[in-house]
Amino acid sequence: MGRDASLADRARALFTRLQDEICAEVERLDGGRFREDVWDYRPAGGTGLGGGRTRILADSVLIEKGGVNLSALEGQLSPRIAERLRVAAQPFFATGVSLVLHPRSPMVPTVHLNLRYIELRGAGESERPRAWFGGGSDLTPFYLYEEDAREFHRALSRACEAYEVGAYSRFKQACDEYFYLPHRGEARGIGGIFFDYLARDPDRALELAQGVGRAFLEAWPAIAERRRGETWGEAEREWQLIRRGRYVEFNLIHDRGTLFGLETEGRTESILMSLPPVVRWAYDHRPAEGSREAALLEVLRHPREWVDSARGV
Amino acid sequence: MGRDASLADRARALFTRLQDEICAEVERLDGGRFREDVWDYRPAGGTGLGGGRTRILADSVLIEKGGVNLSALEGQLSPRIAERLRVAAQPFFATGVSLVLHPRSPMVPTVHLNLRYIELRGAGESERPRAWFGGGSDLTPFYLYEEDAREFHRALSRACEAYEVGAYSRFKQACDEYFYLPHRGEARGIGGIFFDYLARDPDRALELAQGVGRAFLEAWPAIAERRRGETWGEAEREWQLIRRGRYVEFNLIHDRGTLFGLETEGRTESILMSLPPVVRWAYDHRPAEGSREAALLEVLRHPREWVDSARGV
Repeated sequence: MGRDASLADRARALFTRLQDEICAEVERLDGGRFREDVWDYRPAGGTGLGGGRTRILADSVLIEKGGVNLSALEGQLSPRIAERLRVAAQPFFATGVSLVLHPRSPMVPTVHLNLRYIELRGAGESERPRAWFGGGSDLTPFYLYEEDAREFHRALSRACEAYEVGAYSRFKQACDEYFYLPHRGEARGIGGIFFDYLARDPDRALELAQGVGRAFLEAWPAIAERRRGETWGEAEREWQLIRRGRYVEFNLIHDRGTLFGLETEGRTESILMSLPPVVRWAYDHRPAEGSREAALLEVLRHPREWVDSARGV
Repeated sequence: MGRDASLADRARALFTRLQDEICAEVERLDGGRFREDVWDYRPAGGTGLGGGRTRILADSVLIEKGGVNLSALEGQLSPRIAERLRVAAQPFFATGVSLVLHPRSPMVPTVHLNLRYIELRGAGESERPRAWFGGGSDLTPFYLYEEDAREFHRALSRACEAYEVGAYSRFKQACDEYFYLPHRGEARGIGGIFFDYLARDPDRALELAQGVGRAFLEAWPAIAERRRGETWGEAEREWQLIRRGRYVEFNLIHDRGTLFGLETEGRTESILMSLPPVVRWAYDHRPAEGSREAALLEVLRHPREWVDSARGV
């Protein structure tokens, strides 16, 4: 799609292509096939247009539950959502691609990617831009492999630095702040990047979105291939299920995309596809001192730098 | 404790006694023993006093995970919590007893009880009373036994009608409205009662709290005894785990007590003891038409009356 097309159309086209590329790559890795549900956006007020295409891979070989969701829809901001965004309630357009993959093996990290473009289509001034890109990607390992964390962050840093010098370190810090559970004193995982309200120079922001999608395709499949053969047993599975509980806590208490989706009456099953397949909550679980589980907690409590920022790679 | 003692002291004494009585009864039913953790309330600001006593029974015979929590503490309302309560940020005192029992058998319903007394201790006017009781109790079956639903509601209605004629039907409706998941279009369970900001005639409100505690002791143990012998298999277990997911969704997205606790920096493990031990999220799960699972959903989507309100019992 050329530069003459509207930004909304170009964003939707990019996200559509990314969904296809990502699903093809995950199917190649896993051997299974995504199930697809095409849906219409139909909020109760009747002011919705458009919809989405949800793809789910469940109970498969590498992936225990994974979803890759595409949406492009028009609706009306509820007063509550408008207040949170600090804009007037008005019509909006939103398109995005979003994925969460929960691997079966506790040695393969859970991964999240979201890229979105939002346009406010009402009249009037606001302290927000009229249109912006947002998104990010973060990695949630159950066992820490420093090599994996570095590889994931390096791929993201290349995409960010192509967008703007210094962007990676800003977006990395925003990610550490965003994917944080105050009541646990823990980050959700080993981070990645997070950005929002990118409005200046939309062509470059679109390229950033494309670059972040490419970074996912470069890093996560390689990490998954490297770790899928590692052995694990009941103890590692237990730890994975307990850590997945933190993922649920983050998504349901804090995640803006989840709450935005639910409050704009998006399709519930597509929004909550991010929740893990099986989860455990154990009262006051504490890993043994010196264990691999404790080593992960240490990193979640004290986020680290994974890229040599002097070199930027 | 006599009527000369402060309301705060009398509420705390009642809740302390209820925790003991309830734990003794659950231990009698289950055969296992609660683990007890005594904790101090220590928010980051350093303005906390008091604490609580959390009792947990896990991986036991009847109970897969259950918690009965007592707390009595003083702190400072955060601006965010104060805004939600629509009062000025100020010191507060809160005491309460709270329980959630997740039985192992899908045939025995999950049950929740919460009773609380809150005092605002700052100066100044507000649209809220300076001190009030709140609470409620609700039942979350995985399979519907109408006899159980009626018994549970009847016990609660007796406690409410002793407090005030017509209270049961108001509190029952408030419960149906409160324990509701808009994004699912489902109630959490078959309801019970919910009340808040009871400030007029505190002696009677304290008696109501006592009556609701007694109603729990009358109804739930009898229901559990009646259903614990019912047979079940993998299919019923799956359904239980999926329905538990809705419990998590409610508690983390909507439950005022959970969010109040987390935002006032209460003890995380005591607040989140309410979360089920094992949970499953399956994409777009739909029970077969005409199945017992579908029959439950029907009641969750269209809450019923369980007590003959003409007779009030």
